[in-house]
Amino acid sequence: MYYAVIFTTERTDVDDGYEETAARMVELASGYDGFIGIESARSGTGITVSYWRDLESISRWHENAEHRAAQEAGYEKWYRSFKLRICRVEREYEWERE
Amino acid sequence: MYYAVIFTTERTDVDDGYEETAARMVELASGYDGFIGIESARSGTGITVSYWRDLESISRWHENAEHRAAQEAGYEKWYRSFKLRICRVEREYEWERE
Repeated sequence: MYYAVIFTTERTDVDDGYEETAARMVELASGYDGFIGIESARSGTGITVSYWRDLESISRWHENAEHRAAQEAGYEKWYRSFKLRICRVEREYEWERE
Repeated sequence: MYYAVIFTTERTDVDDGYEETAARMVELASGYDGFIGIESARSGTGITVSYWRDLESISRWHENAEHRAAQEAGYEKWYRSFKLRICRVEREYEWERE
């Protein structure tokens, strides 16, 4: 099985590099060992779910220096609040229209 | 610990009751035993994450007759594709600006 990191955010009104940094984080995470995929949506609340092979990959990504700097900027200016949940995916079902 | 159901969707162009049904499903789920909360966002991709006390509550909700009818309508007209992942929340972290 694999893991999901559910990151739910409420933004401030401050942009100041937010979109660029968010795009850069996706790019950077995608190159990490253990990265499986990422899904993102915002309408008021933002939800980003990234998928990882194991807890070790999640820890390594969390400690990446550039990611750390982005986290700091998140606390300082971009987020009003957030929740981060680390989950183990137990079952999944996928469907596509023919 | 508790569980998260990550429901990721791509919509068709068909509305036909979609918003009303989505709102009704939130209302209905909220009254279910074992329901903890729900978060939703859409920008192209839609992500809805609902939180539940245990797997039994998730099963009961999945089998609710009105929910079943909504699932059928989803297959028939509302979704191009979707993924459903049932996850166990292992760790969480929450932050709010002072």
